[in-house]
Amino acid sequence: MKTVTILGLGLIGGSFALALKKIGLANKIIGVDSNLQHCKEALELGIVDTLGNLKESVLVSDLVVLAIPINAIQALLPKILDYIPKDTIVMDMGSTKSGIGAIVRTHPNRKNFVATHPIAGTENSGPKAAFPELFMNKVSIICDPEESALSAVKKVRKIYQNLWTNVITMTSEAHDEHIAYVSHLSHITSFALGQTVLEIEKNEKAIFDMAGSGFESTVRLAKSSPDMWTPIFIQNRENLLNAIEAYETQIKKIKKMIEDADAETIRQYLSNTNDIRRILNK
Amino acid sequence: MKTVTILGLGLIGGSFALALKKIGLANKIIGVDSNLQHCKEALELGIVDTLGNLKESVLVSDLVVLAIPINAIQALLPKILDYIPKDTIVMDMGSTKSGIGAIVRTHPNRKNFVATHPIAGTENSGPKAAFPELFMNKVSIICDPEESALSAVKKVRKIYQNLWTNVITMTSEAHDEHIAYVSHLSHITSFALGQTVLEIEKNEKAIFDMAGSGFESTVRLAKSSPDMWTPIFIQNRENLLNAIEAYETQIKKIKKMIEDADAETIRQYLSNTNDIRRILNK
Repeated sequence: MKTVTILGLGLIGGSFALALKKIGLANKIIGVDSNLQHCKEALELGIVDTLGNLKESVLVSDLVVLAIPINAIQALLPKILDYIPKDTIVMDMGSTKSGIGAIVRTHPNRKNFVATHPIAGTENSGPKAAFPELFMNKVSIICDPEESALSAVKKVRKIYQNLWTNVITMTSEAHDEHIAYVSHLSHITSFALGQTVLEIEKNEKAIFDMAGSGFESTVRLAKSSPDMWTPIFIQNRENLLNAIEAYETQIKKIKKMIEDADAETIRQYLSNTNDIRRILNK
Repeated sequence: MKTVTILGLGLIGGSFALALKKIGLANKIIGVDSNLQHCKEALELGIVDTLGNLKESVLVSDLVVLAIPINAIQALLPKILDYIPKDTIVMDMGSTKSGIGAIVRTHPNRKNFVATHPIAGTENSGPKAAFPELFMNKVSIICDPEESALSAVKKVRKIYQNLWTNVITMTSEAHDEHIAYVSHLSHITSFALGQTVLEIEKNEKAIFDMAGSGFESTVRLAKSSPDMWTPIFIQNRENLLNAIEAYETQIKKIKKMIEDADAETIRQYLSNTNDIRRILNK
């Protein structure tokens, strides 16, 4: 590709830019971000070759990548499709897909758009958190591929493959339902755990001296960006509420077993749940 | 020390043995374990120099280390104190301390015992999971030091320091109350998350293809050993139930905000919880 525009120069957009550069997939990367500090950093870190404004950048690009919070994607994507050049592809990297899909479904240039979700990230954000290997050996989902031009889907799939990312396809609806359980819910459980312990810490300053690597791992996602996660929780509200309810049921079950001091039932529950090991090692 | 007996050759006991060897703190390490496979592995891996039976090993040891589940510690510790040589120290490494403390409080040889909890571990268990650096830069708690001989506490503190482990002291009661929040609760939240997703997976086989590193980190502790954790949950029941209730309150709070699609309140909650970053980096 001659020219790629990356809108959003944080962890995801920045890492994607670095990866494209690493393997020589883009001659020129233009960065667009409303956060001027991020723009400055991205330029200094060599994440982008130049900065630009959105419309001018799109008009000269072969590929436009939207790596911004999903509410911003929803606001900007229809406008970008209004003026997108005939052969330019726009792809997003948002964590919920139904809302974005719905907003452009009937757009005359819908076929230029490929909806994707690379399941990759860390608890850190901003250009300084970006690194080119972020997508390596991760899974990226392309949603509703039949609504995009076949050539556009092929191109996006090829780019992910070159980044060593495995690609699977599914509908937006299936994506949002599943991701509520394996991504959004674990953010909720981390934030709730973090807040529970922070509340206790108000009276017990020493408590964090006792926090080990287990706590740190479980609470890690509570460091995640509010700007990114607030709109995700709201957009995927229905699926997420189902997931939270299923989770509350499990918490209640464990609580009951502990109240009853029912060793055999607890042991069986923990042992069944150890099965997660089989699945994570797949 | 000439001779050290390690009772329990799993992750914790095995790692402690390897660390003592690494820095030349023990001339001879005797391993004791009711699991014959673990005995065989510990010998093969060079974790212990020899195997022994409990009483004979204690009688020839300068230090006896109990790295077994806490119900087993409670069963064996009073017996060991019955026949412990005058200058031998016995230390435990259990994750709850009040129950153990209570059971030996009035024992005539209570002073030979030092109650400790090294806050170190991984989700893996058994001798093969052991490694000498496990305790490095971790915190180890010595409980109720005034109930032990001063010389014994000094010795145990010195050993932990030689393992690069920071030592703090507190009462058993304070330990159990705090550790419910920063360790036991995070195991509960992981097990509940693991079980929630396993239940969904029964109908949605593809779901784990979508699990990323965030989910993996949050659910990691659900791989933990049922034999170790069942008695911990039961022994620390009261504190843990308080912690679970505080946690349920937070989950309910978040659920309500999501139901209300209240972006500003969600953003504020997530942003407040990001404060965990400050505390974990301390």
